[in-house]
Amino acid sequence: MAYDDQNIFARILRGELPAIKVYEDDQVLAFMDIMPQADGHTLVIPKTPAVTLLDLPADAAAYTIQIVQKIAKAMQQALGVDGIVLMQLSGTSAGQTVPHVHFHLIPTSVHQLGKHAAQMGDQDKIKAQAEKIKAAL
Amino acid sequence: MAYDDQNIFARILRGELPAIKVYEDDQVLAFMDIMPQADGHTLVIPKTPAVTLLDLPADAAAYTIQIVQKIAKAMQQALGVDGIVLMQLSGTSAGQTVPHVHFHLIPTSVHQLGKHAAQMGDQDKIKAQAEKIKAAL
Repeated sequence: MAYDDQNIFARILRGELPAIKVYEDDQVLAFMDIMPQADGHTLVIPKTPAVTLLDLPADAAAYTIQIVQKIAKAMQQALGVDGIVLMQLSGTSAGQTVPHVHFHLIPTSVHQLGKHAAQMGDQDKIKAQAEKIKAAL
Repeated sequence: MAYDDQNIFARILRGELPAIKVYEDDQVLAFMDIMPQADGHTLVIPKTPAVTLLDLPADAAAYTIQIVQKIAKAMQQALGVDGIVLMQLSGTSAGQTVPHVHFHLIPTSVHQLGKHAAQMGDQDKIKAQAEKIKAAL
């Protein structure tokens, strides 16, 4: 699929749109989902332009999943959560809404899912959760 | 979390229980979910004993996600599906039912999820899907 460099995650990566960041290095960015499906919902994205996981170069996938692990551990420690759902949607028919590959880390149960991109969360609360996660990294 | 080597995926890895396999190498096994949440539902597991993604050594995670990509591409080609949901549940409170880390690849929409481990599928149909995926690898 052709990559649209005006998608909101591409704009966040270029600093054109704000994000509540919890981690960043030269290859990956992790930030809070502003429409959380549960408290602490975090997104991890490779900086490599790719629409879906199927388009992402294998080395970028390998690196990103290790940062996913790092963030998940920090979430568990910082937020005191037991269960974490990792979800990655490839394709609009899977429910993907932003055409830049992203991994959701959601402290919830799979049985509570299906409310993807439903509503805006309390941004102050989200910022406080981000601070806790950052402190645990 | 302590690893229980009697869990069903450990027993499948040891050949003590059957599985409809689509891919296997020295580090990873991919096989069909016998209680599919959608046609073509496939599981990818590292052979490394680990309960959740948080427990899995980083190098095993890095390798496994690359096989996840490989299987997802084969599913897309073999089954003619547009969207694929990648899901990985860490912890019983996330809905994890088998205590060996596993990645779900489900050709469906996130809005159709939440029916985890619901009911047995048609095993002949599942075997036919596995043959198609294997042929596309």
